[in-house]
Amino acid sequence: MTVSREVELKGHIIDSGMMQSCFGIIMDMGGSFEVEEFRIGRSKTEESYARLLVEADDPDQLQSIVHELHQNGANPSDPNDARLEPAPADQVVPKGFYSTTNHPTDIRIDGMWVPVEDIEMDCAVIVERDDDGHPYAYTEVLNAIEEGDMVVTGEAGIRVQPPERPRGSEGAFGFMQGGVSSERPSETTISNIAEAIAETKAEGGDVLAVCGPALIHSGAREDLARLVREGYVDLLSIGNGFAVHDLERDLYGTSLGMDTESLDHPRKGHKHHIYTISEIIRAGGIEQAIEDGLVDSGVMYECVQNDVPYVIAGSIRDDGPLPETITDAVEAQNAIREQAHQADLVLMLSTLLHSVAVGNCLPSTTKTVCVDINPATVTQLLDRGSAQAVGMVTDIGTFVPMLAEHLFDER
Amino acid sequence: MTVSREVELKGHIIDSGMMQSCFGIIMDMGGSFEVEEFRIGRSKTEESYARLLVEADDPDQLQSIVHELHQNGANPSDPNDARLEPAPADQVVPKGFYSTTNHPTDIRIDGMWVPVEDIEMDCAVIVERDDDGHPYAYTEVLNAIEEGDMVVTGEAGIRVQPPERPRGSEGAFGFMQGGVSSERPSETTISNIAEAIAETKAEGGDVLAVCGPALIHSGAREDLARLVREGYVDLLSIGNGFAVHDLERDLYGTSLGMDTESLDHPRKGHKHHIYTISEIIRAGGIEQAIEDGLVDSGVMYECVQNDVPYVIAGSIRDDGPLPETITDAVEAQNAIREQAHQADLVLMLSTLLHSVAVGNCLPSTTKTVCVDINPATVTQLLDRGSAQAVGMVTDIGTFVPMLAEHLFDER
Amino acid sequence: MTVSREVELKGHIIDSGMMQSCFGIIMDMGGSFEVEEFRIGRSKTEESYARLLVEADDPDQLQSIVHELHQNGANPSDPNDARLEPAPADQVVPKGFYSTTNHPTDIRIDGMWVPVEDIEMDCAVIVERDDDGHPYAYTEVLNAIEEGDMVVTGEAGIRVQPPERPRGSEGAFGFMQGGVSSERPSETTISNIAEAIAETKAEGGDVLAVCGPALIHSGAREDLARLVREGYVDLLSIGNGFAVHDLERDLYGTSLGMDTESLDHPRKGHKHHIYTISEIIRAGGIEQAIEDGLVDSGVMYECVQNDVPYVIAGSIRDDGPLPETITDAVEAQNAIREQAHQADLVLMLSTLLHSVAVGNCLPSTTKTVCVDINPATVTQLLDRGSAQAVGMVTDIGTFVPMLAEHLFDER
Amino acid sequence: MTVSREVELKGHIIDSGMMQSCFGIIMDMGGSFEVEEFRIGRSKTEESYARLLVEADDPDQLQSIVHELHQNGANPSDPNDARLEPAPADQVVPKGFYSTTNHPTDIRIDGMWVPVEDIEMDCAVIVERDDDGHPYAYTEVLNAIEEGDMVVTGEAGIRVQPPERPRGSEGAFGFMQGGVSSERPSETTISNIAEAIAETKAEGGDVLAVCGPALIHSGAREDLARLVREGYVDLLSIGNGFAVHDLERDLYGTSLGMDTESLDHPRKGHKHHIYTISEIIRAGGIEQAIEDGLVDSGVMYECVQNDVPYVIAGSIRDDGPLPETITDAVEAQNAIREQAHQADLVLMLSTLLHSVAVGNCLPSTTKTVCVDINPATVTQLLDRGSAQAVGMVTDIGTFVPMLAEHLFDER
Repeated sequence: MTVSREVELKGHIIDSGMMQSCFGIIMDMGGSFEVEEFRIGRSKTEESYARLLVEADDPDQLQSIVHELHQNGANPSDPNDARLEPAPADQVVPKGFYSTTNHPTDIRIDGMWVPVEDIEMDCAVIVERDDDGHPYAYTEVLNAIEEGDMVVTGEAGIRVQPPERPRGSEGAFGFMQGGVSSERPSETTISNIAEAIAETKAEGGDVLAVCGPALIHSGAREDLARLVREGYVDLLSIGNGFAVHDLERDLYGTSLGMDTESLDHPRKGHKHHIYTISEIIRAGGIEQAIEDGLVDSGVMYECVQNDVPYVIAGSIRDDGPLPETITDAVEAQNAIREQAHQADLVLMLSTLLHSVAVGNCLPSTTKTVCVDINPATVTQLLDRGSAQAVGMVTDIGTFVPMLAEHLFDER
Repeated sequence: MTVSREVELKGHIIDSGMMQSCFGIIMDMGGSFEVEEFRIGRSKTEESYARLLVEADDPDQLQSIVHELHQNGANPSDPNDARLEPAPADQVVPKGFYSTTNHPTDIRIDGMWVPVEDIEMDCAVIVERDDDGHPYAYTEVLNAIEEGDMVVTGEAGIRVQPPERPRGSEGAFGFMQGGVSSERPSETTISNIAEAIAETKAEGGDVLAVCGPALIHSGAREDLARLVREGYVDLLSIGNGFAVHDLERDLYGTSLGMDTESLDHPRKGHKHHIYTISEIIRAGGIEQAIEDGLVDSGVMYECVQNDVPYVIAGSIRDDGPLPETITDAVEAQNAIREQAHQADLVLMLSTLLHSVAVGNCLPSTTKTVCVDINPATVTQLLDRGSAQAVGMVTDIGTFVPMLAEHLFDER
Repeated sequence: MTVSREVELKGHIIDSGMMQSCFGIIMDMGGSFEVEEFRIGRSKTEESYARLLVEADDPDQLQSIVHELHQNGANPSDPNDARLEPAPADQVVPKGFYSTTNHPTDIRIDGMWVPVEDIEMDCAVIVERDDDGHPYAYTEVLNAIEEGDMVVTGEAGIRVQPPERPRGSEGAFGFMQGGVSSERPSETTISNIAEAIAETKAEGGDVLAVCGPALIHSGAREDLARLVREGYVDLLSIGNGFAVHDLERDLYGTSLGMDTESLDHPRKGHKHHIYTISEIIRAGGIEQAIEDGLVDSGVMYECVQNDVPYVIAGSIRDDGPLPETITDAVEAQNAIREQAHQADLVLMLSTLLHSVAVGNCLPSTTKTVCVDINPATVTQLLDRGSAQAVGMVTDIGTFVPMLAEHLFDER
Repeated sequence: MTVSREVELKGHIIDSGMMQSCFGIIMDMGGSFEVEEFRIGRSKTEESYARLLVEADDPDQLQSIVHELHQNGANPSDPNDARLEPAPADQVVPKGFYSTTNHPTDIRIDGMWVPVEDIEMDCAVIVERDDDGHPYAYTEVLNAIEEGDMVVTGEAGIRVQPPERPRGSEGAFGFMQGGVSSERPSETTISNIAEAIAETKAEGGDVLAVCGPALIHSGAREDLARLVREGYVDLLSIGNGFAVHDLERDLYGTSLGMDTESLDHPRKGHKHHIYTISEIIRAGGIEQAIEDGLVDSGVMYECVQNDVPYVIAGSIRDDGPLPETITDAVEAQNAIREQAHQADLVLMLSTLLHSVAVGNCLPSTTKTVCVDINPATVTQLLDRGSAQAVGMVTDIGTFVPMLAEHLFDER
């Protein structure tokens, strides 16, 4: 017995890689297909369209294939409304709930396609109605589901739209399509990233910097502080270690004096680290320490002085931690999520843990720049289906100064 | 003006590297010294001894040098009692508090040397007296300091003893002294690690396994589960991701069937991941899911069945998380600390985050084995002054099966 | 002005990624296209076919686009014969010569499509005629071109056919399509590689092992020697270092005795290294040393005893070198080329230099397995358009023993 | 039976790590020792001295220990003249020949200590006499030994002197003693390296740059060319790939135009690569191409224009190769050796193969700077006992521009 179903691909079906993926899925999973219609958009603004008849040997196989196609942006050409079921208890989803991708997604309700707000991956989709009875949909992480929430289940009435990848000629992000490489011209790549940041700022967008402690160790602190001061960083996402190291430079930099110049006496490091934490706790926190004049330079200082909101997310390897550090992981995720949803461009600078946490909350349409000296880290961060992600394998200690130079020269 | 002070080195002053460090410190910091006495232990059981007269140009410089020497195990030959000061408030240490190393440490009180219990680095030392008025000392992390705790300050009356490094001929840990290498014979190294584990178990010691999710991805789950079942793992320290992947194999392994055999359909991965979390939450937790018969294989299953205590420490990149995951970082650290203090041998398997967290709580005398495919991770984990740490750059997916083979063959 | 040209895609146009590449090229380079015909092969044996009308703004742009399409397997639908021009001097090609890819390629001569023999990338194509006047074509590296050789120039009459990538269900090489990963089940992957080797041998094919010295350091020597002895390795490609280390184990293994067992006395290594070279030179070479009974174990020994041809290619970091080492790079490349063309499956084991040298000479249709502990090495080796390449990031010291175990168990 | 022998340590016995190594060797190898005399140099110019009585259980063990001590700089206090034996044939050394370390070494002949010229590791030492009958000694690689050469054998009459490591306060190379780190301030480290180069030039020394092709890919070509032009590079050691990429930028940079600016059309790369080789062969070589005006920019161009000698060493992965490439490995090593012996400071920039080849020929006293983005490469290059080696894990594409900036600013 051969069973079949018609599916449609719409939009940037070539540029997004959607068509190639869909053909591959069908053949990998043992199905076959006929191309019933195939129209290529003749210009960048015209959409492409393809209609395939997918065939399989039995209904189960067909359903598996259609499921995978659906994840990759192909939709049945005969949609029904999405099916909604109430959550049976707090944190418990109905069986068969739809788990999101990070691509823009619409839900069909009352015959209309309603966009899902704040799309991010691995969430449930909740549908509510406003006072006028109009439906709206949004994502919810598992631990925030409440009993009775109307959760989308199954796959009917759900439309996923993988975004196109930018072409070389279009804007600052067109410059790097092949993902990561350590064999690209470093300075040109950095200047392109600077341009993308400037562009984002010019359009009124928000830049989120996600930073690891290596940034401080490698001597990039002053340049990052300047980027904050000059308005190129709108949001900061860090861990306890980053903040401690930044503050330690302030508190013990002067007394050590030659340290950052001469690299002398590195042995003293860990003592100052724990003394710094102790002094900040004694002062009552970072903001209090700045207000008291105890701390008067660095990244944290510039954030406080320039009203740049920061999230210090705790982890099990923290010393201290500092009073402002959010020690509960779920609470920290919620703070990170809010930043991620606000950001238009995200710089992931030398931190795998925090970058993954932020990346988990990003839609595939947010511009992302990943910088790390470890190629495996960059690859892992880029490998999330984002259409607008560029990665650079370089030294954060030379990257940030060069980026700053390009940004300040450009003005 | 030349000022000077006499310091003593006792114990394994050559094997531990103490003498070389001390000579280097004095010269790096601009001082000079005379060796007043120098006795080498003629046998392994006899201690060595050196007495140096350290000279500097002024008292400040002398104090800096003596401070550094002290951190490395050299002690003034004319000790006074340690100075104690009360903590002025909760979480606030007295100024100038002594921050610990991870080496065995004694505190001089009432003219006696009292060992510091549960030594770990970057802590304060608290001194109390028991009902008989006898003093005892223990470490406390900054966030657990309570107002009025008597905290050791300054450097007088503190004795640090870096442990010796084992020699080639002594026991299973003598085999690898040069630290990390990817150019050692892999099978022989694994068999030596197996021997060290067997030795620890034979002596009634406890083995703590710290495991990352790559262990599951790489196919080592069944062998680790067997190690738990057969009593080679006494304590398990993991993150939410490890537990989810382990449970996912149980819940969706059967339905996917050929997956682990044929490597088919990897695309489905993330769906099962989030479904697994959802199912475990629905069941009320891991233990309930096992009790209900929902889960009946794997590492978590064997831990529950064999009363092997586990700590699931949360992080900001977790999905879910599972009900048993400790989401608060400080609470999780306390649970980890307890395991770390109990352990006699620690296996750090493919996780940087959790290994650092555990390593932070370990004394330098605990045997440690670090295994990771990234040489930078192994180097970072070994670089903590532990005398008994061996590192191996290898594939966790081949390491665990070979380790299991050696352990089960040996019996 | 809009100019256009019709191109055709034939064969595995989806599975090979050809169609996706071609669409992308046209759009990247500023052209547009219409799909005039599009037929999907309904079964694995039926070919697919697409005919595109490519459009550009001027003839230069059109030619650039068609050039790139051609490199990726799309051919003008109105072919002419290839253009041939004589080489003006030894080692000098005619201007505009066609530089090959590593994909199967045909040249149109006398209206017929003639396959290019021994295809490899970055070569010229020479056309000659046999005694009956029938044309044949083959690749030639630049340094071997002779004055008067008839060299293919331009792009007319050349047909490139990128091979399809295997699907999951087809044979041993279907198992790993996504390239490299350190997060696959290691043992299963190794067993699949063993199966691919067994399959190649069963079909009468030849296995070429390209090995670096880390294989010896990591303790895999005995297992590789056994693979040679048992007929699983038909050709060996190595450097001077590999051979020296293999022989050193034989010559100094016995006297050191416990070395490979106890890992004792690693300091002696470099002395034995240079003594080994000296002893082999004294004996008159490896084969003479084996004949004399000086060497009676190891990989080189098994090669000589079992008539497995080996190439020892010299490099500038060699000590000695050994008498059998080919010190001239061009001469060594020719020896490597011959092995590469004979091989049906190539194992690249822990050597970047030799693997690249062999890889340069391989057609894209030869099965290739790359194993290294450095992910960047594996990525670089796989990134050559081969359709049948699998990479594994693992420890060669555990890989070879496990591979041997699977192969010997399978019989 | 206990046997013993007196050995002496002289010179920088602490700073060089000699004493620590020697104590460790004796204990590792099962011996024991007494310190008979121990004098610490009171100032930097005063030497230290120690005399040990080494004891072992039998003469064989004692000899093994003394051998290892000798390799590390300890010498019997009762020296005899070195033993000389004639080489029995070309390339064949006498049995028991002394294989060199890379440390300064003296040979005792006629009761006098004669320094070994051009010390490098893994060589034989040949002794000859000049016309006045005065002895002199020099190293010779195995493949250059000639029948009848008088070769030093055994260990008597040989004195090895490991150099001291510089302290923080002494000159530009004092800045980095702990070897490699990716967590040092990058800009400060680069400025220290610039200072060391400037210092070397100010003292009339020669700088040898050893460069890999990644330097060109990463966009650092123009800055390196300027360093050559301005006299900061006196010698260049490269491979065929570096030269081809440098020339390709010249030949095809103009026609591609936007390439280095916009990063467009990376696909064309390999065509230009092979075309470049073809054009240079057609011109008759690099120098001819420059003389003809075909090439007028880049690193090779500046070398030719400024009489900076270069060595292009061939390898088995080369395309072409270019006419100036030395394809024979032994001949290339000899050219490299000559450069290495002339150099006072060596920059190893992003190439493992060529850096190892150069490093093999360097005495331990030559200043060496290793820069690579792969930490394992930097570690391997530093791990050769050099006292004056600093390593930096960074991006060559940002390193060279910053280095140039510091050097040109400093004047």
